[in-house]
Amino acid sequence: MYRVYGDVLSGNCYKVKLLLEQLRLPYEWIAVDILKQETRTPDFLIKNPNGKIPLLELADDEFLSESNAILYFLAEGSHLFPTERYLQAQVMQWLFFEQYSHEPYIATARYIIRYLGRPHDLEETLQAKIPSGCKALRIMDSHLSKHDFFVDDRYTIADIALFAYTHVAEEGGFGLAEYPAIQAWITRVKSQPDYVTIG
Amino acid sequence: MYRVYGDVLSGNCYKVKLLLEQLRLPYEWIAVDILKQETRTPDFLIKNPNGKIPLLELADDEFLSESNAILYFLAEGSHLFPTERYLQAQVMQWLFFEQYSHEPYIATARYIIRYLGRPHDLEETLQAKIPSGCKALRIMDSHLSKHDFFVDDRYTIADIALFAYTHVAEEGGFGLAEYPAIQAWITRVKSQPDYVTIG
Repeated sequence: MYRVYGDVLSGNCYKVKLLLEQLRLPYEWIAVDILKQETRTPDFLIKNPNGKIPLLELADDEFLSESNAILYFLAEGSHLFPTERYLQAQVMQWLFFEQYSHEPYIATARYIIRYLGRPHDLEETLQAKIPSGCKALRIMDSHLSKHDFFVDDRYTIADIALFAYTHVAEEGGFGLAEYPAIQAWITRVKSQPDYVTIG
Repeated sequence: MYRVYGDVLSGNCYKVKLLLEQLRLPYEWIAVDILKQETRTPDFLIKNPNGKIPLLELADDEFLSESNAILYFLAEGSHLFPTERYLQAQVMQWLFFEQYSHEPYIATARYIIRYLGRPHDLEETLQAKIPSGCKALRIMDSHLSKHDFFVDDRYTIADIALFAYTHVAEEGGFGLAEYPAIQAWITRVKSQPDYVTIG
């Protein structure tokens, strides 16, 4: 049985939980508290030298880190990952977009506000995240104004990866009122079979 | 024939060039100048709404962005991408590590120094990149002290992705003297068949 080291409020960890539920795969969830530095203990660093969650344990001494690599591993061969090569690569394109152009702004802003309580000395950092976060949302909204889902007009792990932090973007100060296509997509994602909420 | 929109000095673009050469796939290279804002023209934004290179054109109206998604697309089914599922996922793990924990520090520092000429007003930004860049190099060096390559002890696209900015890390102010395993790995990568240099 898979074991997931994670934090239920983290979008990156939630991605893995949502996918496991939707694939109906059994798993054990090990709660890890980032604020208590539990990802920096010698014991945890043996499992993942980068000191990050989520972390998937497949078997003794078999670990996999990076949320989107875990999604890929779990979804390959399932209905949530395409079989055609160009479609597979498009899923990957959106997964890398999420980690490079979306998460560092929208998730990090939410982390500063929700986990750290918006300390004054991080206000400038927080403000600096707004333009790039809005750019990511504009790109998503434009794509979703022409497509029901990100790839192949059907629900895949590209949607799971982008949904995780987008549907709670307001907790990072990013209102979604200007992005009607994102709002409609969020409703579509929430209506998928075996959907579970974050937290 | 594939068409690549890229800049020969960019590590992200070089990844694609190196892989195409090593797979002996014919391609046309379209030079795009970031500093002249050529990735922000209306014409380019139709091809990639995120306004970034490299961009792969497969056919009319078929594009793929995100360097590591392009590597995955081109390498699937070749000797540079494993066939076993857990090994494939480990390649992905390192590709996401590269884009999230390596490139934003090491590549961006090099960009500030090499492309922008190290302007005074970016000195603080540059300094702030050092700790995370060094952390990425430490993680790589530790892994490479036990393995010849990143995954399955053989050369894969995980090596190509990480090599691109690591072998020119000194141009971003990251000396490699402290990382002997990385240095030995760079020598191994440079000795691969059909290796081509950056630039």
